[in-house]
Amino acid sequence: MSTVLTAKLDPQATLVGLAEKKPERVTLVVLSGDMDRVMAALIIATGAAAMGMRVTMFFTFWGLNALRRTGSSSRASDWLRRMFGVLNKGGADRLPLSRFHFWGLGTRMMKRVMQQHRMPDVPELMEVAKDLGVTFIACTTTLGLMGITKDTLVEGVDQLAGVSTYLAEAKDAQVNLFI
Amino acid sequence: MSTVLTAKLDPQATLVGLAEKKPERVTLVVLSGDMDRVMAALIIATGAAAMGMRVTMFFTFWGLNALRRTGSSSRASDWLRRMFGVLNKGGADRLPLSRFHFWGLGTRMMKRVMQQHRMPDVPELMEVAKDLGVTFIACTTTLGLMGITKDTLVEGVDQLAGVSTYLAEAKDAQVNLFI
Amino acid sequence: MSTVLTAKLDPQATLVGLAEKKPERVTLVVLSGDMDRVMAALIIATGAAAMGMRVTMFFTFWGLNALRRTGSSSRASDWLRRMFGVLNKGGADRLPLSRFHFWGLGTRMMKRVMQQHRMPDVPELMEVAKDLGVTFIACTTTLGLMGITKDTLVEGVDQLAGVSTYLAEAKDAQVNLFI
Repeated sequence: MSTVLTAKLDPQATLVGLAEKKPERVTLVVLSGDMDRVMAALIIATGAAAMGMRVTMFFTFWGLNALRRTGSSSRASDWLRRMFGVLNKGGADRLPLSRFHFWGLGTRMMKRVMQQHRMPDVPELMEVAKDLGVTFIACTTTLGLMGITKDTLVEGVDQLAGVSTYLAEAKDAQVNLFI
Repeated sequence: MSTVLTAKLDPQATLVGLAEKKPERVTLVVLSGDMDRVMAALIIATGAAAMGMRVTMFFTFWGLNALRRTGSSSRASDWLRRMFGVLNKGGADRLPLSRFHFWGLGTRMMKRVMQQHRMPDVPELMEVAKDLGVTFIACTTTLGLMGITKDTLVEGVDQLAGVSTYLAEAKDAQVNLFI
Repeated sequence: MSTVLTAKLDPQATLVGLAEKKPERVTLVVLSGDMDRVMAALIIATGAAAMGMRVTMFFTFWGLNALRRTGSSSRASDWLRRMFGVLNKGGADRLPLSRFHFWGLGTRMMKRVMQQHRMPDVPELMEVAKDLGVTFIACTTTLGLMGITKDTLVEGVDQLAGVSTYLAEAKDAQVNLFI
């Protein structure tokens, strides 16, 4: 529901005036670690933030790879999570396409096309998002499950949190997407 | 929020009566080009439109393939986007299943089952959606990135637009999904 | 929109008091049958239900596998759906990871890590969800398409329904996600 409509409904808001209007909110759960889906999430996030909306992105499961330093590995003490960490590499610049990845070849092709068209890639979009005040939250459950420590995440992660933090934000937001 | 509830909240609406009620809105971002996900999007879209809701579908990335003419290829001038265009074929009747596609065999099996049960396929659902007034928007960023020109899209695309058009619609909608 | 805000907007609600507040609602369409996505859906569902929200989960397409008894096969009379049923096995404990499934090896690794960290798996999360009053709806269209009969579903499925039931719930919900 738009705040404009809220203002119409609330007699008090009309008295107090437009200055009282709360910014509209957007939340994005980013579970996918695919380059195309993370890009779409960031394009929506930066677009909304540029329009004055309050945007929160919750990175969970494979999506958390976008918040991990490139080349960082799992620091888990057990071999099982370590082995999984070898497969599941972090780094916003290393996300594969969901289609036509072809062991990296297709993804590299797409990146070159983006470069030629001066389209920002995932690391650049993340910087723009941070500059526009988008909140980045890393899912604590995933961190534990994958043996990822806070110091291996990139700078700019605002909070480590769980599902209740997400829901508290989402229930007051106008746009909630699961990506 | 339902318009019914809005009517209760707004004293003016009660005076003016039910004729003034705005239709409820649904927006769907269709990033996936998988047959099953596009079908789900169209079933929700046509269902909502049949219930009198205002429905907008934003086709982006692989989802845009549903809006491309079957057999149309990328008209990009550079070999890189052309090569990508060879892989990424358009056509609403050519979308693969997200599971058990098996180089076309699984998808063809599923299509035959659907035919036997007189279930509409993706091209038929798109026609129903257009008849019910669902708005189709093609993402301009994807068009540029993939070297797809407007004349290779199917008829019935209402608008070429970007993220701000999407957000302007989504912030006032009751149901927003990312597919 | 939060009910707290609704209470502020509605003069009647203020008179009647907080006891009249309707619970906030969450709907989740679960199309994916991937372990990680179904787990995320259930974590959001149980989290929301624990916070007092009314949660409805609509299982459709591959997501329906989570509601099928382990080892149950398609009872379709035609060989085509039967063959598809052999590929598309049901069972909440059999869902594959969307990444690194590796013919079951990667998924088994992840399950063992979860066990070591005493994290509930999909069948356990489903039980918690049922205990917390989450509503499970199985998509009738998928049942027909895949030749799945009601008696091969697990206990705890509240309803078999279609898209209009989903939309009626979603249009009044604060959080609607497509997973």
